[in-house]
Amino acid sequence: MDLRVHKTFEALFLLEDIREIFRQSTPKGLTKAEKERFSQLITGLKKIIDEMETGKGTPASSKIVGSIDLRTREEECINIHPIQRGGRLTPEARKAVIAYGDGYSTCDFCRKPFRLDKITRPGILDFHEELAQFVGMDQARVVPGARRGFQAAVSAVAEKGDTVIVSALAHYTEFLAAEQADAIVKEVPLSPRNLITSDATAQKIEEVSRETGKLPALIMIDHFDYQYANEHDVLGIAKVAKQYGIPFLYNGAYSVGIRPVNGKEIGADFVVGSGHKSMASVAPSGVLATTNEWAPKVFRTTRMVGDITKRKFGIKEVEMMGCTLMGATLLSMMASFPAVKERTQHWDEELQKTNYFLDQFQRVHGSTVLSEYPRKNTLTKVDTTGSFDTVAKTHKRRGFFFSDELAGRGIVGEFAGATRTWKLNTYGLTWDQIRYLAESFVAIGEKYNIPVTG
Amino acid sequence: MDLRVHKTFEALFLLEDIREIFRQSTPKGLTKAEKERFSQLITGLKKIIDEMETGKGTPASSKIVGSIDLRTREEECINIHPIQRGGRLTPEARKAVIAYGDGYSTCDFCRKPFRLDKITRPGILDFHEELAQFVGMDQARVVPGARRGFQAAVSAVAEKGDTVIVSALAHYTEFLAAEQADAIVKEVPLSPRNLITSDATAQKIEEVSRETGKLPALIMIDHFDYQYANEHDVLGIAKVAKQYGIPFLYNGAYSVGIRPVNGKEIGADFVVGSGHKSMASVAPSGVLATTNEWAPKVFRTTRMVGDITKRKFGIKEVEMMGCTLMGATLLSMMASFPAVKERTQHWDEELQKTNYFLDQFQRVHGSTVLSEYPRKNTLTKVDTTGSFDTVAKTHKRRGFFFSDELAGRGIVGEFAGATRTWKLNTYGLTWDQIRYLAESFVAIGEKYNIPVTG
Repeated sequence: MDLRVHKTFEALFLLEDIREIFRQSTPKGLTKAEKERFSQLITGLKKIIDEMETGKGTPASSKIVGSIDLRTREEECINIHPIQRGGRLTPEARKAVIAYGDGYSTCDFCRKPFRLDKITRPGILDFHEELAQFVGMDQARVVPGARRGFQAAVSAVAEKGDTVIVSALAHYTEFLAAEQADAIVKEVPLSPRNLITSDATAQKIEEVSRETGKLPALIMIDHFDYQYANEHDVLGIAKVAKQYGIPFLYNGAYSVGIRPVNGKEIGADFVVGSGHKSMASVAPSGVLATTNEWAPKVFRTTRMVGDITKRKFGIKEVEMMGCTLMGATLLSMMASFPAVKERTQHWDEELQKTNYFLDQFQRVHGSTVLSEYPRKNTLTKVDTTGSFDTVAKTHKRRGFFFSDELAGRGIVGEFAGATRTWKLNTYGLTWDQIRYLAESFVAIGEKYNIPVTG
Repeated sequence: MDLRVHKTFEALFLLEDIREIFRQSTPKGLTKAEKERFSQLITGLKKIIDEMETGKGTPASSKIVGSIDLRTREEECINIHPIQRGGRLTPEARKAVIAYGDGYSTCDFCRKPFRLDKITRPGILDFHEELAQFVGMDQARVVPGARRGFQAAVSAVAEKGDTVIVSALAHYTEFLAAEQADAIVKEVPLSPRNLITSDATAQKIEEVSRETGKLPALIMIDHFDYQYANEHDVLGIAKVAKQYGIPFLYNGAYSVGIRPVNGKEIGADFVVGSGHKSMASVAPSGVLATTNEWAPKVFRTTRMVGDITKRKFGIKEVEMMGCTLMGATLLSMMASFPAVKERTQHWDEELQKTNYFLDQFQRVHGSTVLSEYPRKNTLTKVDTTGSFDTVAKTHKRRGFFFSDELAGRGIVGEFAGATRTWKLNTYGLTWDQIRYLAESFVAIGEKYNIPVTG
């Protein structure tokens, strides 16, 4: 492990110990014992900073507590994990999380009408308006993960036994959302090129209507699916949905927060995004946005009245279960938001980097791209059956030889041991990191005498 | 603001900027430009540490980003906010959150069968077993807040139109959980001493059965309610529930994580706790635990099959929506867990501190305790209509005079401007802090010539 990285964590942790002195103190100031402890810790901190500077020293234990080790893969490695790249925290989010980690940290200035999205200090109210605008919708709420956005929307629009149409590449959480609401799921089949088309969607609607005598209650399609991250025709599908008068949920788990998304231009009735997948936020977090037309349904407020007490519960929203992300999860979203808005403007360059990498990746004979190509997303399914898997067949470490080779080069996040079809993501890598990554794949190919072109 | 507190945050933030250099670098090591930036930041860090040591210097901006200010009330003040005390992070949790803030940080070593609670690195699997044991139940899952535990349980056991019995002091999220599942809520009335008794519960069951011709689907009672934090007879109520064959959900939002709770000894079928309220964890987090009898229902796995693809989704649980807390929220629970287990053993002393404080508090003539007394919880509803409110009546700042006086003494978390009935919580305050708090209330009384007894 890089000593300076290790020492950076040690210094952060030691500062948390210093912080704890203040948290245990009274407003009268530190006691003698507290002052002594403060001095001791400052001495320790200075030593760590010396070690950071000179690069000399011994790392302390890498255990934080119990089974929890330091996690340094983002600092020491290039992480190409398919679902982790867009959820890495910005420095701003990390700072906000340090300051707002405590449970109900958002609730210091909660006043009437007592709802998270109405709080103005910090500016949670404004953030909600900006968030709606960011995805081109009228209203937005934060939710504990995109899946909880699906759940709310399905529950609001589908009755027991209703049909929800999803993609043949739909994420499992869309199925669960329907199952939790006692709805039925029907898949739109893929084109030979692994795409969901508006024609196929219309056919499925017709089929469901014929079979059940009722139109589907919802169409829920991923702009980019989790398998290939191919771009599906959400614009055309939204048009079809509109023609049939069926609400359309745009699943932006792999788009909201990394590329521009405008729900109304697409024709979406609901837009769902994931905070921890694509908005540089702490899990579980996400966004559910909708139009003024659908808001009264999905954001309906409670009608409950206590039979004895006659209590009512104000403007708490049923599908949201009241307040949602009351602390560091929300603050991480808010703190990352300026950087997230900015980064969606550089999507073209992200695609350039991905396509550059994949060009190099395919120089190793037998390595191919299973996703549509050139890429329109930074998540990609690749096939190395014809390259690295030929080595794995006879290697004593089997497929793990490949993980070993990557790890030896400081690359992590591949599916350990997989050398046939697997997924990677390059989102947010710098050009230097991209080039390093590309060179590493070529070098592994060369090392094992796999032909490398050009 | 205390300069050293401010500088502690500045140092933490600067270390995050240093950390970011490594996150943007390649495994080849830092470039010349990166090294220069590193040196500059180290120089800045040394300056901050000098300022921490000497106590001399100028604080930097207290803005983190946008509308997000530093939050220093836990470091600079004594915070008596009714819902915040038990959710304050331990130092271990703060360190874990620093290391595991990134979105899907728990998923580095996710292997078959691909479910959060099966991950062994970090030890999430073991944690789930320990968590079940901690609340005296067979199985446990982490959930995004206690409310999501209620939602899962109600949805699993209640059909549309079924009745759920709650307390006349039930939290609004219990109502929402029922409403979201299309169930009906009926309240058990309070005794004259603001307690829910087993007799009143039995009567309500009879009443519901008579009126609807059907037994209630669930009884959901708060061990300590959110209003008075009075202790309700969960043991007796569990017995009644068992007699009628109705499942009983023990709401431990104000007990699990701060005092011992044994669900099976109580006779609970479900135990729900709150991470951000009482388990020193990042929001939204919580626990839903159950018996082996009820687990197959509330933790049932998906039965969905793709009609086109014939896909199945393994052991993903419907009511959990698959994985739940995939990052820092869970890691904060896990990192705090050893300290949380330990602290529940010192509940008696927490009550001693609360009762000591309230004895002193009541020395100010006209200040009374509305909750049962002596206290069996650290959350208390008090009434200062006869004391501080008499001052507010003629003060130009009205009730805010009281907030001003508290703030001037470094005490925060009261409901700003309230001088009649309001709530406070002393959980986890040191004896020094308790004494300081007590002295402050007495001093404010004296300052405004309110009679103070012995």
